[in-house]
Amino acid sequence: MQKNKIIIVGAGLCGTLLAIRMAQRGFQVVVYERRPDMRKGVEDAGRSINLALSARGLLALEMAGIKKAILEECIPMRGRMIHPLGGQPFLSKYSGRAEDYINSVSRPGLNLALIEQADQFDNVTFHFESKVTKVDLENAKISYQLNGETYQDEGTVVIGTDGAGSIIRRSMMSQTTKLLFNYSQDFLRHGYKELSILPANDGGWKIEKEALHIWPNGSFMIIALPNLDGSFTLTMFHPFEGEAGFNTLDTKEKLKAFFEQYYPTLLPYIPHLYEEYFENPVGTLGTIKCYPWQAYGKALIMGDASHAIVPFYGQGMNASLEDVRIFDETLEEHGTNWEKVFTVFQDKRKDNADAIADLAIDNFYEMRDHVDDLAFKRKRQIEMQLEQQFPDYYSKYSLVTFQPKLPYQQAMRKGRKQDELLLQMCSQSDFDKIPLENYHQQLLAIK
Amino acid sequence: MQKNKIIIVGAGLCGTLLAIRMAQRGFQVVVYERRPDMRKGVEDAGRSINLALSARGLLALEMAGIKKAILEECIPMRGRMIHPLGGQPFLSKYSGRAEDYINSVSRPGLNLALIEQADQFDNVTFHFESKVTKVDLENAKISYQLNGETYQDEGTVVIGTDGAGSIIRRSMMSQTTKLLFNYSQDFLRHGYKELSILPANDGGWKIEKEALHIWPNGSFMIIALPNLDGSFTLTMFHPFEGEAGFNTLDTKEKLKAFFEQYYPTLLPYIPHLYEEYFENPVGTLGTIKCYPWQAYGKALIMGDASHAIVPFYGQGMNASLEDVRIFDETLEEHGTNWEKVFTVFQDKRKDNADAIADLAIDNFYEMRDHVDDLAFKRKRQIEMQLEQQFPDYYSKYSLVTFQPKLPYQQAMRKGRKQDELLLQMCSQSDFDKIPLENYHQQLLAIK
Repeated sequence: MQKNKIIIVGAGLCGTLLAIRMAQRGFQVVVYERRPDMRKGVEDAGRSINLALSARGLLALEMAGIKKAILEECIPMRGRMIHPLGGQPFLSKYSGRAEDYINSVSRPGLNLALIEQADQFDNVTFHFESKVTKVDLENAKISYQLNGETYQDEGTVVIGTDGAGSIIRRSMMSQTTKLLFNYSQDFLRHGYKELSILPANDGGWKIEKEALHIWPNGSFMIIALPNLDGSFTLTMFHPFEGEAGFNTLDTKEKLKAFFEQYYPTLLPYIPHLYEEYFENPVGTLGTIKCYPWQAYGKALIMGDASHAIVPFYGQGMNASLEDVRIFDETLEEHGTNWEKVFTVFQDKRKDNADAIADLAIDNFYEMRDHVDDLAFKRKRQIEMQLEQQFPDYYSKYSLVTFQPKLPYQQAMRKGRKQDELLLQMCSQSDFDKIPLENYHQQLLAIK
Repeated sequence: MQKNKIIIVGAGLCGTLLAIRMAQRGFQVVVYERRPDMRKGVEDAGRSINLALSARGLLALEMAGIKKAILEECIPMRGRMIHPLGGQPFLSKYSGRAEDYINSVSRPGLNLALIEQADQFDNVTFHFESKVTKVDLENAKISYQLNGETYQDEGTVVIGTDGAGSIIRRSMMSQTTKLLFNYSQDFLRHGYKELSILPANDGGWKIEKEALHIWPNGSFMIIALPNLDGSFTLTMFHPFEGEAGFNTLDTKEKLKAFFEQYYPTLLPYIPHLYEEYFENPVGTLGTIKCYPWQAYGKALIMGDASHAIVPFYGQGMNASLEDVRIFDETLEEHGTNWEKVFTVFQDKRKDNADAIADLAIDNFYEMRDHVDDLAFKRKRQIEMQLEQQFPDYYSKYSLVTFQPKLPYQQAMRKGRKQDELLLQMCSQSDFDKIPLENYHQQLLAIK
């Protein structure tokens, strides 16, 4: 088995976890990464982008024996702290069960930890600042550039964990007719921009630490996730055009008037708003789907490379880490018959990747259009009570987030049916007179 | 107005009709085409690929005053001649109205006629063997290669009618995040291969001339369209894999046994089967959708470049020619405010392009899975009777094919509702005892 050499392109979260697991299995692993080695210093690692790590991601980390180490870098978030315009903030828990929460983790912090773990293996080699420029899919050969020179490498297989702009996926796409390569990219008319709340003078958190904060405003919003250093990373989700559009809010005056009107309770926490707003770029929010994920039993893509999704279910990273767990499980079943492993993996995984992509899009529209609907609020209330009272009941959110062994597609199907039933029951005027057990019985009948 | 220079990339059917119409409006038109000038000779123009030209395409040709000339190159096809395995051939008409038929036309023949028409205008210039390699979308500038040299040109606007592999669309795609460019490509697991029936010794047609012939076989089939020279172009639509797969039928022996079993009545007409089958390539069948179709008010794509579809509704070319008619109509409304014209055009057209793409896919599955269903056969029978008796009734097929001013999306919506109602009525055992007027009344109520 040691004779198999796995080339991994991309040392992000998915690629490094894969490197660790493949090293544990005894393979020779070579990782190519375009960016410099993070261990040589990352700008502002503590304060930049953070992500919600939840049960699926944790289960994958556990497989590699590194869950505990990572959890130490996390801040639990027990619910959404909603800051309604003109109202008092209130906490909406993620689950009726106290043990079900999600974790705020710094992306660069987590990535660094995974690189450090992976690099401890003798059979893992990292090549940083090495940009893969060409891929020979049939032969698992790559060309990469390092310091202006071009080099080559050849593996038994090559696995692309190189994100939404994947070069491996683009190579597959250049063989469209040969591979019958299906592909779609879909962008929301919303983008995002990062801002921040600085730590308090004593190094503490200026607002509730253990929550994901939301300042909702109908079709646009700002969210905040806590960082270990006392800061919060804010993300503005706004349309590009229109009154709240990034393209419209293009002067300090307009921005000030806008925030005074729509984010008055947030404004005091961000005195440095103007510098950050005009310095930070606007990111796009897109969904990428494709099929197949493998070519010739020699090349495979996973993570964002094969299924980039929008962030509204907090599952992008978790889905990518889960890919590694399922890939590992498939390898366990089929050994190093790579063509078999690759095709079984993609066929196990494709529907689940589609499901979480669709759920994330649904959530965008749900957050935008229904967060204030009476029936939706009532539903959430009943869901909490049900989760507190019945150990066998999980809301759609909980099925997706806290049931890590349930495939996304099944979570989606069951969760959607539950939602339908609950929304229908909650639209009745006597919804709160229906005994909880009746809700429970009807929900249990859903397969 | 004459000062506006329109660069058209691609001298196919859509590009040349656009050139003619833009020339008629007085614009300066420059057309770049990768292939050689067809007037210098096209191999086998009379016998290669043919297409079904119907009312939408004809209406667009009429706008440019060239419908009559083109119709002279056409052979009417009044219905589908079905050749069931083990049964007698029978004709299934396209419409209950005698005046509604479709036309078999040679693609190169039609293209040649359009190039000749366009080249008669002083204000149209063709550049053949000129491959556009780069597009500056913001400035409507192109680079092209001719005889190994690279040249440049700049227009007021550039319009890409360069087909499914469009370089203009690829330029838009390379600006994905700036344009929020949505894109999808979807391939069927079926491909196609062309064969032919040669003319009779007297130059006539060996099988019924005025029909589109089909040899159905469940999940695979062969169709035939007549050519002016007495030949027929056959198209095999088969899966790539499995018993009937192109990849499986890879020896003369297997092919012979397969045709003897599944196409026994066709076999005598194709003694040269083996040469053609093993010489001709297998084509893929894909749907391409994207949005936006325009960039910066300077660049636009139309035809297959923006919406390539599968051939199962016979509407690919008709939709592309219709693009030109709708573009012309939009230009009439908004003058040379190009940004306005481009955005209005794409927004008028996008839903209709999606609709015919989806209808074509539906038809693939309908032909594959339901052509022998009792309810479907009954429905077709009732539809014919209704069309014969009621001038205001059009079946879904007729709405799409013979109502050229009805947008595809409306045809789809209305047609699908009609289908649903008819299938439901036809699934009743007394379906043929229901007076035709009852069907008609219920169908009329559909909006």
